[in-house]
Amino acid sequence: MPDAVVLLSGGLDSYTAAAIARAEGYRLFALTFRYGQRHAQELSAARAVAAALGVERHLEFDVDLSVFGGSSLTADQPVPKDRVLDAGGIPSTYVPARNTVFLSLALAWAESLGVHDIFIGVNALDYSGYPDCRPEFIAAFEHLASLATADGVAGAQVRVHAPLQHLSKADIIEQGCAFGLDYGLTHSCYDPTRDGRPCGRCDSCVLRAAGFARNGLSDPLLS
Amino acid sequence: MPDAVVLLSGGLDSYTAAAIARAEGYRLFALTFRYGQRHAQELSAARAVAAALGVERHLEFDVDLSVFGGSSLTADQPVPKDRVLDAGGIPSTYVPARNTVFLSLALAWAESLGVHDIFIGVNALDYSGYPDCRPEFIAAFEHLASLATADGVAGAQVRVHAPLQHLSKADIIEQGCAFGLDYGLTHSCYDPTRDGRPCGRCDSCVLRAAGFARNGLSDPLLS
Repeated sequence: MPDAVVLLSGGLDSYTAAAIARAEGYRLFALTFRYGQRHAQELSAARAVAAALGVERHLEFDVDLSVFGGSSLTADQPVPKDRVLDAGGIPSTYVPARNTVFLSLALAWAESLGVHDIFIGVNALDYSGYPDCRPEFIAAFEHLASLATADGVAGAQVRVHAPLQHLSKADIIEQGCAFGLDYGLTHSCYDPTRDGRPCGRCDSCVLRAAGFARNGLSDPLLS
Repeated sequence: MPDAVVLLSGGLDSYTAAAIARAEGYRLFALTFRYGQRHAQELSAARAVAAALGVERHLEFDVDLSVFGGSSLTADQPVPKDRVLDAGGIPSTYVPARNTVFLSLALAWAESLGVHDIFIGVNALDYSGYPDCRPEFIAAFEHLASLATADGVAGAQVRVHAPLQHLSKADIIEQGCAFGLDYGLTHSCYDPTRDGRPCGRCDSCVLRAAGFARNGLSDPLLS
């Protein structure tokens, strides 16, 4: 049974990507970051998801990107609501170089474990605003990863799997439901209410709701 | 005056690389990592070096790579001494994916600052044991950096400068002495004594001593 490091945010995408890795026969080493995000729901969702997946190990790692600033997700700035999602541009919720940092740390853990497979739940179709969700970024990181490591020098090929890359949010939810995933465990909202409920109006809530709707389902978090 | 993010470890190489950046006209934003290294001398040396360089800002960032293990620099393992340095292989002082993590975080800060130049003091000539000091690694990271960021999408070219890449340790020291750098401020030893003096026998001490000797100098830390 091969091992894989999976990035697990507690959101719907990374839960589904991890479930795909498990279905492909990997034993999962889940990695969640406390990166200075404004709310802690993500972290408790990641714990619930990791338990539901039966991961081999779940590591929460501190890397406080809020020190650098530059994002409404890590600073005391308003999160945009009711946006036109296909208007182009990069939204203020973009966190500078976040996926580069997250994949680098996944690579560090993977190499320490002797693991050559990393799963990340990025998807480029329904949400093309973030530069570090694009296929060319993932390909460039995969190229870097083998050059960066002792395992790579010894001939191992590090693979960065992004199984959701070309799926719509509706496709992702359809796949997850086929696996029997409980999306009620997840958390996606960028700006939850004080009692932890989704705001329903940030980009993440809007995309998620549309994905459930296209499957003729309602989001278990809203019911 | 353009700005640059410089990785500053407190060692001789990063001090010299930062001085080169300054001589090229950059205003310096120095970044030092508390990454779980076994001794704190590196950090106090980085502070002294940053002050001597007159950096615009010096940021110490926590990213505890010792959580992952896999290195004698971050774990309670003996550091190798009196090694034959050109014997090939990757020494146990290699920290998995360290430079990938460090450059990723430098990229995150650079993008938040609106900076497109990053300096790193790697050198490949005198110490080819670490995969993430090789020119092909630096080139791959530079390629990744523009794909990873909003600035890159907007057309900015992120440059990763490694001005020591093809210099020997003796060349580096010669250059630094020409700049008038005080290498007595630095710290290079992997395994200092309890009172903070260099061991004189780890790879880092041996390379450093040879570099000073080839310039007809003695290491100020040993005098």
